[in-house]
Amino acid sequence: MAKNLNFVLLLDCYGELLTKRQKEIAELYYNEDFSLTEIAQIQQISRQAVSDSLRHSEQILSQTETKLGMAARIGTMRNCLEQILVSCQSEDIPRITELAANGLQLL
Amino acid sequence: MAKNLNFVLLLDCYGELLTKRQKEIAELYYNEDFSLTEIAQIQQISRQAVSDSLRHSEQILSQTETKLGMAARIGTMRNCLEQILVSCQSEDIPRITELAANGLQLL
Repeated sequence: MAKNLNFVLLLDCYGELLTKRQKEIAELYYNEDFSLTEIAQIQQISRQAVSDSLRHSEQILSQTETKLGMAARIGTMRNCLEQILVSCQSEDIPRITELAANGLQLL
Repeated sequence: MAKNLNFVLLLDCYGELLTKRQKEIAELYYNEDFSLTEIAQIQQISRQAVSDSLRHSEQILSQTETKLGMAARIGTMRNCLEQILVSCQSEDIPRITELAANGLQLL
């Protein structure tokens, strides 16, 4: 099971839509970087149950992103603000103005 | 029934979680500014059914915002970008840098 880092952002956006247990397992895996076997020990369930829970959670998170697109929107905003910071270094006011105006359009 | 303009943003964020009919009614009311009576005529349902649908949709949208807080996050970003635009007019690079860095932290 390959770890997909996109789920870190999806978990941040939509984690509250998971059950308490699903969220705990997903956070241990994606945010705390525990292995499936370690999570199984922590949660006192089988490794297979951890794997099933993660797969189910990923499905919920992906489906919600397909509907709402909030993670993509936040990614776009992050990119916009990072570019503004770069343009601050060169004191490029016209470029910053353009970036901020475009960012507002996309919000 | 007073029109709460916060729902325009909530509808933009979470409208896809409503049923097709609920979304249509909410969009006519919040985005197109039709009255309950006009929507009832368009949808060929009673005015009471329109009112019930709106109340139910508002409940779904509010509950989702309580869980996910995405509308608040987008509102904060909008505010950040607007302040950056204002600071562009006075060419205040230190302030723009501070605003963009804070915005990134809040994303």
